[in-house]
Amino acid sequence: MPGDMPRQSVIQWDAEDPLAALRERFVTDDLIYLDGNSLGRLPAATPEHLARLVRDGWGTDLVRGWPTWIEWPRRIGDRIAAHALGAREGEVIISDSTSVNLYKLAAAALDARPGRRTILADAEEFPTDRYLLQGLAAQRGHTLRMLPSDLDEGLDPATLEAALTEDVALVVLSAVSYRCGALLDIAAVTAAARRVGAYVLWDLSHAVGSVPVELTANGVDLAVGCTYKYLNGGPGAPAFLYVRRELQESLRQPIWGWFGQRDQFRMSADYEPAPGPDRFLVGTPPVLGMAALDPALDVLAVAGVDRVRDKSVRLGRLMIDLADAWLAPHGFHLASPRDQGRRGGHVSLRHPEALRISRALAAAGVVGDYREPDRLRLGPAPLYTRYVDVWDAMHRLRDIAERRAWTEVPAEPTRVT
Amino acid sequence: MPGDMPRQSVIQWDAEDPLAALRERFVTDDLIYLDGNSLGRLPAATPEHLARLVRDGWGTDLVRGWPTWIEWPRRIGDRIAAHALGAREGEVIISDSTSVNLYKLAAAALDARPGRRTILADAEEFPTDRYLLQGLAAQRGHTLRMLPSDLDEGLDPATLEAALTEDVALVVLSAVSYRCGALLDIAAVTAAARRVGAYVLWDLSHAVGSVPVELTANGVDLAVGCTYKYLNGGPGAPAFLYVRRELQESLRQPIWGWFGQRDQFRMSADYEPAPGPDRFLVGTPPVLGMAALDPALDVLAVAGVDRVRDKSVRLGRLMIDLADAWLAPHGFHLASPRDQGRRGGHVSLRHPEALRISRALAAAGVVGDYREPDRLRLGPAPLYTRYVDVWDAMHRLRDIAERRAWTEVPAEPTRVT
Repeated sequence: MPGDMPRQSVIQWDAEDPLAALRERFVTDDLIYLDGNSLGRLPAATPEHLARLVRDGWGTDLVRGWPTWIEWPRRIGDRIAAHALGAREGEVIISDSTSVNLYKLAAAALDARPGRRTILADAEEFPTDRYLLQGLAAQRGHTLRMLPSDLDEGLDPATLEAALTEDVALVVLSAVSYRCGALLDIAAVTAAARRVGAYVLWDLSHAVGSVPVELTANGVDLAVGCTYKYLNGGPGAPAFLYVRRELQESLRQPIWGWFGQRDQFRMSADYEPAPGPDRFLVGTPPVLGMAALDPALDVLAVAGVDRVRDKSVRLGRLMIDLADAWLAPHGFHLASPRDQGRRGGHVSLRHPEALRISRALAAAGVVGDYREPDRLRLGPAPLYTRYVDVWDAMHRLRDIAERRAWTEVPAEPTRVT
Repeated sequence: MPGDMPRQSVIQWDAEDPLAALRERFVTDDLIYLDGNSLGRLPAATPEHLARLVRDGWGTDLVRGWPTWIEWPRRIGDRIAAHALGAREGEVIISDSTSVNLYKLAAAALDARPGRRTILADAEEFPTDRYLLQGLAAQRGHTLRMLPSDLDEGLDPATLEAALTEDVALVVLSAVSYRCGALLDIAAVTAAARRVGAYVLWDLSHAVGSVPVELTANGVDLAVGCTYKYLNGGPGAPAFLYVRRELQESLRQPIWGWFGQRDQFRMSADYEPAPGPDRFLVGTPPVLGMAALDPALDVLAVAGVDRVRDKSVRLGRLMIDLADAWLAPHGFHLASPRDQGRRGGHVSLRHPEALRISRALAAAGVVGDYREPDRLRLGPAPLYTRYVDVWDAMHRLRDIAERRAWTEVPAEPTRVT
């Protein structure tokens, strides 16, 4: 019985965890940090790595560092492709923010499907995706159809299938929903859209580094994602984008910057998109932000995303089992898919006082986060979250529930995903 | 006679330079670095400032750091406004790259001038500006008219005036030309465009931190610029954008990201642009990149951009005087406006072997850069370049010229602005 599960047995799981040693490769403290799906922890090697770049690269090499740095959008993109995405070389680049990348690839896909006027998205999609598509639809006279979706279970694939007509140019979906953590079947959705000639642009922000998305095997055409969550790239780290190799030459993104230009330093009169993935670059890439990704990817490479997923599933199951046993009696409801095959790395719990509970929990040394309208979102990160952390967090949450400790906490929002 | 100017007298200028002490606030070495207009030197306070942010902010505060960081696009934008741009609070934000900002503001300006079909730009404009406008023109069916411009003297204001018709929606110009350093009369150009109802979008990349652009006093509507040149923000540092306060509510940029949304964390269904300059934000801002700007701006604030300009003019004049005396006899020609009132902070010299000369100069311990087709571009930065550095650089250049030392150097390109 999970409710009777003694702390000691969970400590034993940690002792047997093949990823346990990797926790030492992060800066940790007594805080139980269950917001690695919002901003991942600092890898222990990152401070010195960045300090060296600042001192030797910027400070000493100065502008002579650029022949090295200019390769980084592709070099680090290739590392993410290999270690996190199951994609091939030359398909992933680091560039801009997730939002700007969404804009670029969505616009490119719409241009590649002239005559089609419909864009599909999940009505419960993360705000920036929804807003960007509203903008593109408004600017082009397209119709953005928001598909009804369950707050706890995510989008029903049947709803999507029913909406896939010959007028659909583009479908934008998160592989893992930011709120409930619902995990979509990437291969099935991509194939269904392809049958009607529509592109799917995947937002991998909550999936990358947590779920093996296997872009090549799943036949994915387009994807974007952020690197500051499970990839531990740091606050506001630059984003990535993926375009299937065979598709690159046929797509053209709307922001024609000099880093997307063929033979950039010839500075020719007319814009001509670079061959390969560089055509999706725009301006000068953020060297400090990119640099922070290398030590973080080193840890992920050692772990392997399949082992990350195995532990992630087990962490989630432990969390749900304990919530069922300890929290359900106090008015908490699971707000994520129960089936682990349909759930990403985080778990949401529903409670009318979720906002104040998240604050009380933080005061008790456990950082999760709150999501509208009434969700407590808990994101264990397998590279550094221990099973005992989950046990302790749920135990403290039970204590808060029993004491109704949130009644002492004021309510007002903030927080960044 | 400048040609007879002894090194000792230039050393005396340094002794009397009111900005001399600020050189200690940068990491310097024996290298004579005349590429501060491409990538500025590392401020001495930056490594520890960044290390603290990484350790205490990212490492310890983690996601709880966001209530602070989220203010930085505006807070640091306001600092740039005050210390470098002569702009008011709430008019400047840090966001994206210069290229993406150009795209956003150019698109916003075109939308605000429906019915007008012409965009004007300098045919010798920096590539990213030209390419972005080509893209916007192609996407919207506008006409991009490239104004003929002198490679050495920049755009003749009369050429622009003659092109300003009632069909012009937007003019995009660099306040200081990236190649020859020509400085335009910001107030006069802005007023001339306004007379026909056109917007001017200024690219301040080569001006900011070097020339007092006085955006408020000069009536400027729109501007963008980069922070890695004279603002010393580091390689690939995030860019800024400026929109005159009175104009903000009437403009809407095309990339509708969640950081541009009113009441962002309410995550409402429909995009509604935030009041004020935040509406020009898009995605999650780059915290590491923004952080590096603070110590750099501290130095500029002490110097004051007017004193920077005074020294910049004098550094440039010294360079030109020595080039006239020492280099003209060896086939070098000034490729920048001679009149200091029409010249920004850098000086270009023309020579058929400029590429190889720039390499020979680097081998002699002086970093400048090469620009197509045959320019050696030298950018002293008043905060850390001494008069004696200019004297020594020109002296070594004379030595290279006398020995025709470039004949030993291979020719092939690279280099980033």
